[in-house]
Amino acid sequence: MQAPVKVGICGLGTVGGGSLRLLLGNADEIARRAGLPVEVVRVATRRPKAAKETVRTDSGIALGDDPFAVVNDDDVQVVVETMGGFEPAFEVVGQALANGKQVVTANKALIAERGDELFEIAERHGTTLAYESSVAGGIPIIKTMREGLAANRIEWLAGIINGTGNFILSEMAAGGRSFEDVLTEAQELGYAEADPSFDVDGTDAAHKLTIMASIAFGIPLQFAATYTEGISALVPEDLAYAEELGYRIKHLGIARHTGKGIELRVHPTLISKRWLLSEVAGVDNAIVVKGHAVGTTMYQGPGAGSDATASAVVADVIDIARQLRAGAAQPLVPALHYHGAASKLPVVSIDGIESECYLRIPVLDRMGVMARITRVLEQHAISIEAVIQKEVHGGSIPIVLLTHAVPDGNMNAAIAELGSLPDVVGPIGRIRVAPFSAGE
Amino acid sequence: MQAPVKVGICGLGTVGGGSLRLLLGNADEIARRAGLPVEVVRVATRRPKAAKETVRTDSGIALGDDPFAVVNDDDVQVVVETMGGFEPAFEVVGQALANGKQVVTANKALIAERGDELFEIAERHGTTLAYESSVAGGIPIIKTMREGLAANRIEWLAGIINGTGNFILSEMAAGGRSFEDVLTEAQELGYAEADPSFDVDGTDAAHKLTIMASIAFGIPLQFAATYTEGISALVPEDLAYAEELGYRIKHLGIARHTGKGIELRVHPTLISKRWLLSEVAGVDNAIVVKGHAVGTTMYQGPGAGSDATASAVVADVIDIARQLRAGAAQPLVPALHYHGAASKLPVVSIDGIESECYLRIPVLDRMGVMARITRVLEQHAISIEAVIQKEVHGGSIPIVLLTHAVPDGNMNAAIAELGSLPDVVGPIGRIRVAPFSAGE
Repeated sequence: MQAPVKVGICGLGTVGGGSLRLLLGNADEIARRAGLPVEVVRVATRRPKAAKETVRTDSGIALGDDPFAVVNDDDVQVVVETMGGFEPAFEVVGQALANGKQVVTANKALIAERGDELFEIAERHGTTLAYESSVAGGIPIIKTMREGLAANRIEWLAGIINGTGNFILSEMAAGGRSFEDVLTEAQELGYAEADPSFDVDGTDAAHKLTIMASIAFGIPLQFAATYTEGISALVPEDLAYAEELGYRIKHLGIARHTGKGIELRVHPTLISKRWLLSEVAGVDNAIVVKGHAVGTTMYQGPGAGSDATASAVVADVIDIARQLRAGAAQPLVPALHYHGAASKLPVVSIDGIESECYLRIPVLDRMGVMARITRVLEQHAISIEAVIQKEVHGGSIPIVLLTHAVPDGNMNAAIAELGSLPDVVGPIGRIRVAPFSAGE
Repeated sequence: MQAPVKVGICGLGTVGGGSLRLLLGNADEIARRAGLPVEVVRVATRRPKAAKETVRTDSGIALGDDPFAVVNDDDVQVVVETMGGFEPAFEVVGQALANGKQVVTANKALIAERGDELFEIAERHGTTLAYESSVAGGIPIIKTMREGLAANRIEWLAGIINGTGNFILSEMAAGGRSFEDVLTEAQELGYAEADPSFDVDGTDAAHKLTIMASIAFGIPLQFAATYTEGISALVPEDLAYAEELGYRIKHLGIARHTGKGIELRVHPTLISKRWLLSEVAGVDNAIVVKGHAVGTTMYQGPGAGSDATASAVVADVIDIARQLRAGAAQPLVPALHYHGAASKLPVVSIDGIESECYLRIPVLDRMGVMARITRVLEQHAISIEAVIQKEVHGGSIPIVLLTHAVPDGNMNAAIAELGSLPDVVGPIGRIRVAPFSAGE
């Protein structure tokens, strides 16, 4: 067998620590699959003393607190960046690439927001920047789209790509509990962070969607252009009414190639109960990809967790080890994966995207209210597909509607006008229906 | 961009024709993803005249009826074998590899039964034999296990890997119809072949399981050692009783790494309704893989169809094109992927495999029958977990049991003895329960 591939790790938190344990604990199997041994030679962590148990002094691994010592170590061929955040992660990855090293990162924010800059550095230095672990932990979705489905024009993809959010919605649906109540439980269980904003406001899902769309369509990373809506405005009644209408509500990231360009959007979405995706519950992730030749395929698994994410980090390391072993003169996967006509495709503004919509309108239960509401909708060219109005005596009642497809802009105008009716006594809930169905 | 990679295709049936159409029709996207153009230069088909519409004379593609003319063409770098069968496919692939060409095949029978010989030829000549399309059409499961989950020790995998069989079971469950009735419909719809034996007797699933297990565990291909049972003995009542007990019946291929070795088995299987896999209906395929680090992941999509399978064939061609473009001195994935200790793991005989079992015993409805049956089971150390005995007045009734885990050998002996009881008036149905659950 050939000489080992030498790896340095920057950051020994949950993912970095998990990756190190996996590389050490499964070394034989990894060597068999890579075709040569993979050896960790240097590790940087903010608290080297605390890491001494994992990185035993007799292991021959150099341990310190400076990530640049890893990046500038001539011995290190592959740098694993598991520090998270932008600073100094951007400089660490950039310097590693500039030094001609292969880099594996689990940093989705870094790739989604500054990936284009890093891909250019990688391209210039003929090296690889791999980031499988940045999306959907254990599901090898990047590789699947880039390689497994490479023969296809990807038409759309849709995913449950935030485990915390899916756990919250699953629990709200199962128990009729409020968002706040389930969020507190998720924090106690360790499924949600002390500051859960990125999970519940959609930022985390938008990071992942940005990355997947870039691979799927061959476009630059366009996090800023991604429409992002969180789940905190949902009430348990929404999940119950959706069920009654034949749907479940999932927080989806949707990327879609249409005649107008690329749709990039993250929002709560009604999906048909007949669709397998609607059954994915708890902290799991699942992504559906539609290719023009292959049809619809689905990938489901743990979206997070140290071991699942480490599995993806180490898979990237093994891919690179294989490449080094094969003596490839240039990277197998070009660092700049977008160029040509496709890369110029515009991102469509949410205002112009048409969706069927679920509306929950809290009104005072009085004569003629339904007529006044449908008149407003009619004025905005919105037609109604289904209505649920339960008999409640006195006080405020919700009118629940399912509309035919309507551009987002029209719907916003209609909602604003409805909100100004004296009948309407609270904020109007609006949830878009998925633009594709189980059979598609 | 670099000079094109030159491809020859042997066999223009459903899959070969689909692959050619995909390579021609999506050439730009394929070139973008591969990093260089992929050009078909020669095609062999049994009926060249009939193929003239697909292979236009002005396309510059040489068209003939001799696959060896493709294999021996110095211009051809990649040979796609889509002829099917063993002869002359084995010689065609073998000669192509011996000529140092990269080979892509969709031929699952060939790989499952003679793959080991072909891998050795590929290894000797430093070339690649790719076969993603041989298993589960559009689902890139080979790549996923070999690369995406490469950091893991695979503990088990289980799959619905025959679309025809899954269609038949789904229809039997939904409509209470008989096996023969649904099979006839499947043939009319084109889901089942005129001779459906490989689909319904499990041979097709066993071919695919053999290939997946070889990749998952790093063992040689052991088709002959795979326990194989079909679906033709199932009656609609089995599906109804299973539902009542909280299960669905799927025809699964199961490969499992236990302390005793590797289990390789294809048989109808009870799986919990709470498991997402139980919801996969119709002609779709789905495969669940359990890795020690990643946990449980599932991959679902079309299991067959010319376009889905062609998508996998062309993905293999693109992988090879990338490898040629990168100037790799040796194949990225070693042709002989098994060696070392793992490759010596024994295949466990079905007799020693323990399963909980569903039993349907047709008996005469008379005094003491249940006691006589449970006594036989007790003598074979089989304990009962659940019983369904519906009141039917007079004549024969089914006793339906769910047992605790029992070695297959014991169960066979018990079934033989039960069959000799005067109470028992027909063949006993036995279906094994999946050895893992949704949460595992």
